[in-house]
Amino acid sequence: MSAKLNIKYTNFLDLSYVPKKNDVLAAFYVEPASGTDIKEAAGAVASESSIGTWTDLATMKQSIWDELRARVYSIEGNIVRIAYPDVLFEAANLPQFLSSVAGNVFGMKAVENLRLLDIVLTQKFLDELKGPAFGVDGVREVLGVKDRPLVGTIVKPKLGLDPKEQAKVVYESLVGGLDLVKDDENLTHQDFSNFDERVKYSLDAVRRAEEETGEKKAYLPNVTAPTEEMLRRTALVKKEGGKYAMVDVITTGFAGVQSLRNANSGLILHAHRAMYASFARSKKHGIHMLVLSKLLRFSGVDQLHIGTVVGKMEGDRDDVLVCHEALGSSDEMKVKTYLPHQEWGNMKSVFSVASGGLHPGHTADLFKIFGKNAVFQYGGGVHGHPEGTRMGARAVRDSVECAVKGISLKEGAKSSKALELALSKWGGA
Amino acid sequence: MSAKLNIKYTNFLDLSYVPKKNDVLAAFYVEPASGTDIKEAAGAVASESSIGTWTDLATMKQSIWDELRARVYSIEGNIVRIAYPDVLFEAANLPQFLSSVAGNVFGMKAVENLRLLDIVLTQKFLDELKGPAFGVDGVREVLGVKDRPLVGTIVKPKLGLDPKEQAKVVYESLVGGLDLVKDDENLTHQDFSNFDERVKYSLDAVRRAEEETGEKKAYLPNVTAPTEEMLRRTALVKKEGGKYAMVDVITTGFAGVQSLRNANSGLILHAHRAMYASFARSKKHGIHMLVLSKLLRFSGVDQLHIGTVVGKMEGDRDDVLVCHEALGSSDEMKVKTYLPHQEWGNMKSVFSVASGGLHPGHTADLFKIFGKNAVFQYGGGVHGHPEGTRMGARAVRDSVECAVKGISLKEGAKSSKALELALSKWGGA
Repeated sequence: MSAKLNIKYTNFLDLSYVPKKNDVLAAFYVEPASGTDIKEAAGAVASESSIGTWTDLATMKQSIWDELRARVYSIEGNIVRIAYPDVLFEAANLPQFLSSVAGNVFGMKAVENLRLLDIVLTQKFLDELKGPAFGVDGVREVLGVKDRPLVGTIVKPKLGLDPKEQAKVVYESLVGGLDLVKDDENLTHQDFSNFDERVKYSLDAVRRAEEETGEKKAYLPNVTAPTEEMLRRTALVKKEGGKYAMVDVITTGFAGVQSLRNANSGLILHAHRAMYASFARSKKHGIHMLVLSKLLRFSGVDQLHIGTVVGKMEGDRDDVLVCHEALGSSDEMKVKTYLPHQEWGNMKSVFSVASGGLHPGHTADLFKIFGKNAVFQYGGGVHGHPEGTRMGARAVRDSVECAVKGISLKEGAKSSKALELALSKWGGA
Repeated sequence: MSAKLNIKYTNFLDLSYVPKKNDVLAAFYVEPASGTDIKEAAGAVASESSIGTWTDLATMKQSIWDELRARVYSIEGNIVRIAYPDVLFEAANLPQFLSSVAGNVFGMKAVENLRLLDIVLTQKFLDELKGPAFGVDGVREVLGVKDRPLVGTIVKPKLGLDPKEQAKVVYESLVGGLDLVKDDENLTHQDFSNFDERVKYSLDAVRRAEEETGEKKAYLPNVTAPTEEMLRRTALVKKEGGKYAMVDVITTGFAGVQSLRNANSGLILHAHRAMYASFARSKKHGIHMLVLSKLLRFSGVDQLHIGTVVGKMEGDRDDVLVCHEALGSSDEMKVKTYLPHQEWGNMKSVFSVASGGLHPGHTADLFKIFGKNAVFQYGGGVHGHPEGTRMGARAVRDSVECAVKGISLKEGAKSSKALELALSKWGGA
């Protein structure tokens, strides 16, 4: 090995550096630990997430330092921007990317709080990752829905219905006017609901609803499981004539999500984000949903829950919209970001999904916020309708038709008993 | 469906309830949102993590309410304890468990902050999950080390060495006296280090070191990748005569980790926790490392990074020790917890791994904190030794022999030049 390099954290600063085309960029909110200044803390993050450690090394080489180190190229207040040569990464392996840029850094004593705000990946990632198999256009083609948001529901109660009872809810929801019906995030294969049976009964319900309505319909079974079982379930869904698989991407993890995509099942992949808020909710620490949105688009899901702005779940307007924009579902890029926009090449767009505490009274606002390239999902807001699931589904569909036509919900309710009842229970205009 | 049940969040409270044998228990720190009281917030958590939603439902049934609802059975200040009938869970599917108990709840508007502090799983989970294949006793047998902590290093720099250079570091580390050498968490298969080649060269180095020292040695290659590739890499390691596979469990995710265990590779599984601190560091929000430790023992890893108490990474003494105890690596259960101790039946223990900014001067403290059933890993604290890797490894091994014999490091340094040099560079006694 060559002569020892004595590298300090602050050696990772290069504030006159201009990022190159093959640099991955990351923006962090950095709150230094007491007694550490921002330069030292920023350098510690760049070091730990690339090639560094806390002491000088006999094994360090000049060429590694020159070619592989990350560089802090900007510090503005607590906002730190870092450039990583993309040779650091195995681009087809998103767990490896996370282990680098979003790994040990969150546990370093040098920082009091640390939040990964945004990332920009390079051409290498576009080349080696699949992205969505269907994307917004592909999903629209499968469902035959061109110019409006998709509407769906989640079977409720979350757990406890048996496969036949569930299939009945699927049928009522679809006949009532919805495009999609999904399992809840914690329903997989339990004593009260055998996965294989549930899929068979529910897909039968889809076929009946399609015949009766003349529309394309879909059931989204939750295939979340250890990978080999997830792939078995996915193959079963395809064999039984399903169009979709749904997966809890965070609790499954990126290895499983990539494996699901790599299996080329022929199914549209719907991504639920249960657990994301354990690390994405704080404004000071963890990982912004924008980062997950980008990584999940690269990994190849076709639809992703990103929040509602309205409803029962947290999420500020801009924090949700910036994800919608990164997924490629928005016509405009309005939200200001800390990094240049990601180039997506030919990688397909992902349908944004708004879900969580929604009822038909929210629809006008949802359409204003998201536009047409989104899936609006109402759970309790369908099955809690005073006249039950079918009328709840009807109310939702009617509310969306109103929004698209620019008619107020109140006005629309005049010719929709279902919508009128929904608005009088939950409000909204 | 039966007559409508009008269920409010507070209906999930049952403060006189005594948990049953088949109840999964969870303890949360709950900080209600402004305008919400603790009872409402606690009920919201129990509702969202079991069968509930935000409105009454036409599809709800009395039997589901009776048999499947979670119950808040205790509220003390901000500490909320919830009991879940284990029929809610697919026990062999840890992603499903997380999607329930650690899923949407973190994003609910009803809470300002929410931290999952502890869990206790039931016999059903012991029956359906594998646990460690080797465990502490099995690892000791493979390595022929009976009565002392294992000592290891991480190849440094983290990234950039080619397979031959890496193999040289492996060899020097092992001949110097260490038991284990591992890849760093962000090294997988990059342009500068082909995975398959690295494994072959490094395992050759292991064999040479074993011959020269007469001791058993191991190299821990990082197999982190999408599942099918992770399993290919694992099989290659086994075929080439390896003893271990290392995996970044959080960035890989629980589906991949369970798949790795389910593949019965015949390799000891070493779990690195990169990214855990994005959701485990805050005292108010996210998931305590204790919960991850238990779930990872159930999932079947043999060794797990849990922190150092000393060193460069965060982690209070009790927060680290409570994990050590839950892994079964501690003789005593000293740390007070919010729930009764987990029963483990015949499930094997997991070796605790202390790693992050360690040098030989820390060893006496580490031994006091962890006792003998732990792996002490020194990265920069080996390769940063003034006379290089081999002497750094020697210093570490000598420091552990001192600790086990109850000799101070200062005293031990009198007969170990390697240790003396390490202490004079980094301090410690």
